[in-house]
Amino acid sequence: MSTIHPTSPSEAQVLTDDEIFAAHEGGKLSVQTTAPLQTARALSIAYTPGVARVCTAIATDPALVHRYTWTSRLVAVVSDGTAVLGLGDIGPRAALPVMEGKSALFKTFAGLDSIPLVLDTTDVDEIVETLVRLRPSFGAVNLEDISAPRCFELERRVVEALDCPVMHDDQHGTAIVVLAALRGAAAVTDRGLGDLRVVVSGAGAAGVACTEILLAAGVDDITVIDSRGIVHAGREDLHEVKAGIAARSNPAGRTSGLAEALAGADVFIGVSSGTVPEELVATMAPDAIIFALANPNPEIHPEIAARHAAVVATGRSDFPNQINNILAFPGVFRGALDCGAQRITENMKLAAAAAISAVLGDELDREHIVPSALDPRVAPAVAAAVAAAAIADAVPGTTGR
Amino acid sequence: MSTIHPTSPSEAQVLTDDEIFAAHEGGKLSVQTTAPLQTARALSIAYTPGVARVCTAIATDPALVHRYTWTSRLVAVVSDGTAVLGLGDIGPRAALPVMEGKSALFKTFAGLDSIPLVLDTTDVDEIVETLVRLRPSFGAVNLEDISAPRCFELERRVVEALDCPVMHDDQHGTAIVVLAALRGAAAVTDRGLGDLRVVVSGAGAAGVACTEILLAAGVDDITVIDSRGIVHAGREDLHEVKAGIAARSNPAGRTSGLAEALAGADVFIGVSSGTVPEELVATMAPDAIIFALANPNPEIHPEIAARHAAVVATGRSDFPNQINNILAFPGVFRGALDCGAQRITENMKLAAAAAISAVLGDELDREHIVPSALDPRVAPAVAAAVAAAAIADAVPGTTGR
Repeated sequence: MSTIHPTSPSEAQVLTDDEIFAAHEGGKLSVQTTAPLQTARALSIAYTPGVARVCTAIATDPALVHRYTWTSRLVAVVSDGTAVLGLGDIGPRAALPVMEGKSALFKTFAGLDSIPLVLDTTDVDEIVETLVRLRPSFGAVNLEDISAPRCFELERRVVEALDCPVMHDDQHGTAIVVLAALRGAAAVTDRGLGDLRVVVSGAGAAGVACTEILLAAGVDDITVIDSRGIVHAGREDLHEVKAGIAARSNPAGRTSGLAEALAGADVFIGVSSGTVPEELVATMAPDAIIFALANPNPEIHPEIAARHAAVVATGRSDFPNQINNILAFPGVFRGALDCGAQRITENMKLAAAAAISAVLGDELDREHIVPSALDPRVAPAVAAAVAAAAIADAVPGTTGR
Repeated sequence: MSTIHPTSPSEAQVLTDDEIFAAHEGGKLSVQTTAPLQTARALSIAYTPGVARVCTAIATDPALVHRYTWTSRLVAVVSDGTAVLGLGDIGPRAALPVMEGKSALFKTFAGLDSIPLVLDTTDVDEIVETLVRLRPSFGAVNLEDISAPRCFELERRVVEALDCPVMHDDQHGTAIVVLAALRGAAAVTDRGLGDLRVVVSGAGAAGVACTEILLAAGVDDITVIDSRGIVHAGREDLHEVKAGIAARSNPAGRTSGLAEALAGADVFIGVSSGTVPEELVATMAPDAIIFALANPNPEIHPEIAARHAAVVATGRSDFPNQINNILAFPGVFRGALDCGAQRITENMKLAAAAAISAVLGDELDREHIVPSALDPRVAPAVAAAVAAAAIADAVPGTTGR
């Protein structure tokens, strides 16, 4: 029988195919009714003729749809299945178990209802158009597992087209948690974010978003690396989004590759599937910070990284400092929906990252730069911070509640 | 305070706006997770890394999507809000409370999961296209509250485009229950369906579908009436669907209106919002059968109808013989999904009607020509009959399970 090791082989926790498939049998979601319907009177209230009163009220005042339907707490998890986990473009049907899992996480960690919508098209125009037509059905959109660089244009256009919170989690969920973790790592090594020279390896969905949020948070010196080397303004092979990154990063004007970038760097953030040789890690500055986030195989094994770094984090649950976007997306959407915000702004993302860091307080140390992915304090704290930021920013919609 | 009378004013059951709106507060649906996620191990099984095994299995064998996701029991309730209850074209947002109610009924009566999808377009091409793109997300489509005559083309095209059960409930749900009720009424008045001269008042979604299913069930003499009088082959104002009805109904070649049609008729089936004067009802044949199904106001008050008829039915719960499509749609979709049928055929609808009738057995009498809308025996009986008919017909998909 095949087995899977979610943790290091040295740990006893091994998953068998049997238990995995059994847990997924019939899917992982169920719709329940919150209004009783088993008696004639209940049916008259929740269905006809009573429901006509509610329909008429909404037809007269459309804002009442938020109050009298489930949309104000309903997140559509939308994917075309083009960049699923580390599996790549496996299509919408094969992606569905992940999307069901995502919807289940929204419920478990934020109390939000959520439905997976997997699309049999990868055309950006068609996806935007489809979501515009479906707009009255939900309250927010979590874009998921959509390949780069399409994901950048897609997210921008869905945000423009819909008057509700929209976030591509592979970009911003990851970025928020990376910022929170970097804040924690900087604190335990007695530095500020502005003191750090950062290398981001990977210029896909996560790499671009991490770079953007770090710039917004005050990290001035970032060098981004893609499969062809350092992203710099002199390259002619950059699509629009990477060109934008090139214009605002790499202040030292480096033009080669990882070796040049890592020499003397304070921070390595790996969000690619590449590997980093130990000899390059050894060239980093003292008290280095290494986030090796590729899953399931980190860019450098955390035990090797630890020989050269003050703080090491991965995306895995079996090493200290797991950087998992479960820490971000449930609370971000909950906060945005709670306050009626029609946008997720940069300040709301920054507030989410700060709230994640703040949860730990005195518990912060080199092996706990972020809370556990299962820490129940996180989502409510993030939601409150996100809602407060939205209201402070007077994000459209927040004044209407 | 406004009140609503779901029942006759003489009955004590009165609904207040307060209790109606309270029951709809926050909507009527909730998504639950069926796989635990609160521990690191559970997360590893139901989400990453375990879920990758399931995704890979589906990518290799797409049929496994039925087994390892919720789609094989998930009905999308789809509406554009153009013909909602008796309220007309109130739009998708105002229609949503009805669609949530419909989803709740699928769960309550058939144990099916269901999500409402309300669309911000009334264009048939766009609705078909949207459902094609969403196809991997659900297992069946219940079209709901879509105006005629668009509903006929829309349903035909969605059926052609999707390899899953599709039914416009306002057409076929109603038609199935009307056939079941007519079978019951004929039985208690010692006649066969072929003995009856039937008048159908209304040539919208329900009227057309009732006519079609009655023809399929062996009722030979049907006269259909629309707002301009008898639907007959000599009229030049008929759209394609009504022209089809004209070609297969009205064997006596009548050309005027309700008075001519009703004189000597055995059965009146009202599925319009019109009214029928008592003096016309009085011209019907002995042992007349009257289904006055307009809601909330029947075409003729059932107490008045009873002066001239052997059997009277309405759409209301406060009179005997309620003809409510709750008797049909939960079991029809459950049966189709249970056996993997990719179509809902005429034989499956006929089997559903027969199963509804059969539930009553010896309990059948003039005030009980169909079971109560709340009778828990109905949906399982309908589901079993529908699945058996699908398998007997070798409907595509049924051999694949």
